[in-house]
Amino acid sequence: MPSLGEDETLQSIRGLLGNGIELFGLRDDAGVLELPTGGSLVVSVDSVVEGVHVDLAFCRPSDIGWKALMRALSDLAAMGASPLGALIALCVPVGTGASELALGVMRGVAEASAASGCAVVGGDVSSAGELVVAVTVLGTAEGGAGAVSRSGAVAGDVLLVTGPCGGSAAGLRELRAGVEGADARLAYRRPAARLTEGSVARRCGAHAIIDVSDGLALDLHRLADASGVGFVLDGVPVAAGATLDEALGGGEDYELAIAVAQADLDAVERAFDSAGLREPLRIGSAVSDPDLRLLGTSELERLGWQHRLG
Amino acid sequence: MPSLGEDETLQSIRGLLGNGIELFGLRDDAGVLELPTGGSLVVSVDSVVEGVHVDLAFCRPSDIGWKALMRALSDLAAMGASPLGALIALCVPVGTGASELALGVMRGVAEASAASGCAVVGGDVSSAGELVVAVTVLGTAEGGAGAVSRSGAVAGDVLLVTGPCGGSAAGLRELRAGVEGADARLAYRRPAARLTEGSVARRCGAHAIIDVSDGLALDLHRLADASGVGFVLDGVPVAAGATLDEALGGGEDYELAIAVAQADLDAVERAFDSAGLREPLRIGSAVSDPDLRLLGTSELERLGWQHRLG
Repeated sequence: MPSLGEDETLQSIRGLLGNGIELFGLRDDAGVLELPTGGSLVVSVDSVVEGVHVDLAFCRPSDIGWKALMRALSDLAAMGASPLGALIALCVPVGTGASELALGVMRGVAEASAASGCAVVGGDVSSAGELVVAVTVLGTAEGGAGAVSRSGAVAGDVLLVTGPCGGSAAGLRELRAGVEGADARLAYRRPAARLTEGSVARRCGAHAIIDVSDGLALDLHRLADASGVGFVLDGVPVAAGATLDEALGGGEDYELAIAVAQADLDAVERAFDSAGLREPLRIGSAVSDPDLRLLGTSELERLGWQHRLG
Repeated sequence: MPSLGEDETLQSIRGLLGNGIELFGLRDDAGVLELPTGGSLVVSVDSVVEGVHVDLAFCRPSDIGWKALMRALSDLAAMGASPLGALIALCVPVGTGASELALGVMRGVAEASAASGCAVVGGDVSSAGELVVAVTVLGTAEGGAGAVSRSGAVAGDVLLVTGPCGGSAAGLRELRAGVEGADARLAYRRPAARLTEGSVARRCGAHAIIDVSDGLALDLHRLADASGVGFVLDGVPVAAGATLDEALGGGEDYELAIAVAQADLDAVERAFDSAGLREPLRIGSAVSDPDLRLLGTSELERLGWQHRLG
């Protein structure tokens, strides 16, 4: 069997589960569960694994807890949803320091919980060979047209991002090199999910939203794939200290990419301003030819983060 | 720092999260989340880790997926809740066979999903050093007095279990010894969460329920601790092929222990019968002295499964 990238494995898993599964991180960042009592819930799960997503050499345990919750919350942000609660499955290596590690991670989870207003409503602690923090988040996107998928962009839509990209990757590079750079380190260790931005964009009628946590380029391709459109980018905003490659493919930035109708652009900008948010940055437009994926005049590579399982 | 057992680490984590956390697997098997749209959700998360909870030498990947979902669903059963959906965080070791392992696990999840009527509504796949399956389940316990905690038993209550215990531990022992024993192997590889039993007991006004997945003895102690009562057991039902020690402390049985008022016992037995369920087995009574914890005339040890993290 050839090795499978994440998207292909997820496709196989979706096929296996058939109608039993609505979403497996493939069609959207989060799923929507209709409740028997009325209303619906936006749900998502995401894992942080030491040695894969994070490295204890460059992150304190509390940073890992913070990142794990924010990473999951970013999936709610990408649906325009507001958080209701989170459940944490924590696996820690047995042995000396295990309890300190568990408590350190949970201290960061508690800090991210306080910063985001998302209560922790359940959890489990297991021993394991390595540190794993799996976070499930539950949210709500009531009112308006409900949760925003990544598949609703149409030709002519303006593409926005909520902030410059590459800061997290630049921070990790600086940490590895042992150089100073407080801003970039903060972007790597303490990213913030764009919950208010996603919610405001949803209320303004955004057509599609995705978070760019796997890399701006890859995630823009995914939004375009899901929507059946192409795109032409004029440029991308690069975080201070980051390179263009880091902005396009570094990943772990929790900015949102948003597709809005040209006619709604003014309303979106005003709503962001009213909410005290940074003005969203215009990066290009969606186009009708799904094969056209340009940055300037060059084809945009699918730069970004995909697990290789095989 | 001295090593911490699971209950103590969970106590520390609860202290850390303060009001931010309702439950961390300590007070009850699952948490209850009030929804802004009205109603409430019963939520729980549980992990299965290869080498800790399961061994690929004795379980196929699909058995592990089955057990992981049933283990989490058992926490809903212990609240008397009915499942609405599950989210799966799957971590698989990178390398040859990773995709087959991921798909095998998810095949078992899909089988348990079909058997329990609990749809998979979200998921995530990561690479990791070992196999981890973290399962979050969402359920509902509408009507009547809502979800049943483990803390409501009162002196004089009859203690019931939904079936004989020790079958899972006996199955694992037989597998390790390489001897035949299809029933016990099935109990180990394909346990079923007692969802209908829990729901029926809740509707009959059960005072307290706990699942005995960490061992009948330890979980009875936990129910008694939470309720502030003691207990006197006449005997415990031992599964065919199992020893008394396996029944008391083997764990991974997904039977429920239920405390009901003596006056409700007939109604419970009739309701179980009407639902086509096995008659619950009477094992003893709750008593007012919280320090009295007897099996026959001997003190019942806290036999069972607790992680040692440190």
